[in-house]
Amino acid sequence: MAPLPSLPKFLFPNPLPRTDFTLHNLPFGVFSRTGSSMPRPTIGVAIGDKILDMRVMAEKNLVPPYFADFYLNPFMMAGRQAWSEVRERLQQYLSDSHPSSLSHRPDVVKEAIVEQKDVTMHLPAVIGDYTDFYASKEHATNVGSIWRSKENPLLPNWVHLPVGYHGRASTIIPSGQPVIRPCGQMLPKDADKPVFGPSKVLDFELEMASFVGGEFVAGDPVPLDQARDKIFGLVLMNDWTARDIQKWEYQPLGPFLGKSFATAISPWVVTLDALEPFRCTAPEQDPEPLPHLRHRGVDFPSYDIKLEVAVKLEADHSPETICRTNLRYMYWTIFQQLTHHASNGCLMRAGDLLGTGTISGKEKSSFGSLLELTWAGSEPLRFSNGQERKFLEDGDEVVMTGYAEKGPIRVGFGECRNVVQPSRVRGEPVV
Amino acid sequence: MAPLPSLPKFLFPNPLPRTDFTLHNLPFGVFSRTGSSMPRPTIGVAIGDKILDMRVMAEKNLVPPYFADFYLNPFMMAGRQAWSEVRERLQQYLSDSHPSSLSHRPDVVKEAIVEQKDVTMHLPAVIGDYTDFYASKEHATNVGSIWRSKENPLLPNWVHLPVGYHGRASTIIPSGQPVIRPCGQMLPKDADKPVFGPSKVLDFELEMASFVGGEFVAGDPVPLDQARDKIFGLVLMNDWTARDIQKWEYQPLGPFLGKSFATAISPWVVTLDALEPFRCTAPEQDPEPLPHLRHRGVDFPSYDIKLEVAVKLEADHSPETICRTNLRYMYWTIFQQLTHHASNGCLMRAGDLLGTGTISGKEKSSFGSLLELTWAGSEPLRFSNGQERKFLEDGDEVVMTGYAEKGPIRVGFGECRNVVQPSRVRGEPVV
Repeated sequence: MAPLPSLPKFLFPNPLPRTDFTLHNLPFGVFSRTGSSMPRPTIGVAIGDKILDMRVMAEKNLVPPYFADFYLNPFMMAGRQAWSEVRERLQQYLSDSHPSSLSHRPDVVKEAIVEQKDVTMHLPAVIGDYTDFYASKEHATNVGSIWRSKENPLLPNWVHLPVGYHGRASTIIPSGQPVIRPCGQMLPKDADKPVFGPSKVLDFELEMASFVGGEFVAGDPVPLDQARDKIFGLVLMNDWTARDIQKWEYQPLGPFLGKSFATAISPWVVTLDALEPFRCTAPEQDPEPLPHLRHRGVDFPSYDIKLEVAVKLEADHSPETICRTNLRYMYWTIFQQLTHHASNGCLMRAGDLLGTGTISGKEKSSFGSLLELTWAGSEPLRFSNGQERKFLEDGDEVVMTGYAEKGPIRVGFGECRNVVQPSRVRGEPVV
Repeated sequence: MAPLPSLPKFLFPNPLPRTDFTLHNLPFGVFSRTGSSMPRPTIGVAIGDKILDMRVMAEKNLVPPYFADFYLNPFMMAGRQAWSEVRERLQQYLSDSHPSSLSHRPDVVKEAIVEQKDVTMHLPAVIGDYTDFYASKEHATNVGSIWRSKENPLLPNWVHLPVGYHGRASTIIPSGQPVIRPCGQMLPKDADKPVFGPSKVLDFELEMASFVGGEFVAGDPVPLDQARDKIFGLVLMNDWTARDIQKWEYQPLGPFLGKSFATAISPWVVTLDALEPFRCTAPEQDPEPLPHLRHRGVDFPSYDIKLEVAVKLEADHSPETICRTNLRYMYWTIFQQLTHHASNGCLMRAGDLLGTGTISGKEKSSFGSLLELTWAGSEPLRFSNGQERKFLEDGDEVVMTGYAEKGPIRVGFGECRNVVQPSRVRGEPVV
């Protein structure tokens, strides 16, 4: 089969410069028309710099009725077969030559095609539960070395299961929404009592996250060979973290307020079908995992997705890349994460979000957080305009991007971009 | 003002034996008629052994229209003034003598009064996020002594903030639903590699939990002197825990699969208005908390609520009480928990659930978990039929109850009762 063209000619008579949202990609998201007097969340599919309005498509009976919903949960629940069928139909509608092509339906095009510049993006789904893993060995080793022990940075359980924790669903925000610097308790250096005030050690964490889909039965596990059918797609995620709050609070029950002020995701969910050409090997696992976590006969359980973090320091500064890494470096796969999560009978629900944890590679330039990139502030980053950063300052904007490319096929994730706003509390920490 | 009678005579011409659900209590819950061909969640108010169907009351314009909803979230969001107004109106409807008394409306009584024995109880609200604290000093000290160090059982942060963690919302279940013994990874004694299989160390944790209500703004804290207006009411909670899974997985990111298989709550939410007569002092806090967590000028920030755990070992065994404790023993109050939670700007939503953590007192008989009651299995409990328990066995039923009493006023929580079902996985753990 010949590869699909990047974009259909009937919608894009003049070729676009490189786009993340090719005919091969077709990611799903939720938007509303900016400035509308009655904005309502509407499901859309990104194509080039445009969006196909799926509510219009549903009203015309061109796609299933659940696309008239406000969020993607019903489609996510519909399962893998529905996902693939819809994908195929959309590729036909958006092709230049197929008999079903919308090129023959200018009435539909007029109503259903929206410019991305004219919309506001929302969260793609109502997220029932959000979980975050800690699945990159390099990241866990770095954090363990910085905070616990250089000799034994990994705790004994780490190589036997994908360590994870429950996160806060109410503060997941879409790209574009500002992040307010959080307040919290922290223990100043050499002090024996904590203080309360705005965090001084604000960090990002570069992650990806899976949206879970399909139907689940409470009490039943998700066998590893069925996990691929239970993940709808992936987004980029910035797991915003206040290191000073986190460090003081996290023992013995784990991350809490150091994380729960904001977790940002890119708004377009890229399906596993779109990512199929980019499947790749995962790092070898030693010791071999217990049987239920073993990828038997699966040579390519991971995805080759290039990831970057750039920081924009002020209005007239161009974002400068400070990290280049890849999803394929991650030790525990997204499928092992889901299978582990459901192994105790924990009910999953369509729309649940599973973050991978920070994705770091072996090289320093591939570390996915400032904690690692500046080694806890001891090696500040220097930007081209001469400014330095140990951690994020008010006004800094963090821009995460990701894409996969193979020959003529490109699948991108767009961006996850948030600016740091000052704390609403002024002054120095209260003692 | 003369105290309210326990129950209205027009509904209860023959006095009931002691009831949790007096005219003073009026807790809110969600039920459906058992065996109905089209069961649908319906909001109700418990009175004696009956329920007032609030959908019927809403359809007759006797209460606000949001009582026709499936869940309590809209009422919880309506705020303290609405809660108090509805309470007052319900006490009038259910009084024998008030002009608005339903005693004058046999048509309404016929339609709106349901027997509790004829219904199935559901969760009272859609729970957006569930958080669990660790707020009993005795419990934290016991667990720290058993698992970490007898010399330093409490970590340094414990006395400065209510330690908490995000929990799993999808597996919160109402009283009455069975709990399936979970599977998971655990490290056998003296082994250096984990195994996977059904938990062998299944435990309960006696807690209470707050349902959050009112409206919230993302990024804004909840000052401690406003926290009372942001808690709708309380329930009993059993934070089911698999100790072997928990012990292996919980470092460094906290409890995960050892908890997320089931968390049970009693179905009737008792409002803070109903609990007002039972306000009491909390344990003295030393060191004094930071200013935002200090109960200034509030002499009675806790509640005197008696709590019990009983275990029923088999069908013809009467539940035997193994723990008697009290909410008032808890070091960090429910208000400090909410204020701490929102102190980083974390958005709360009406219907969120905040567990207190296990409530233990000083005496051994007041410890709120088997881990503590049997000191990690080293001192088994002996029941009157000669059986012993270190931890829970299949078929055991755990029954939690709670009530407050002062002179003629009694406010009870009903019960939180769940039976342990065998794991769906058979056989010995897989290595």
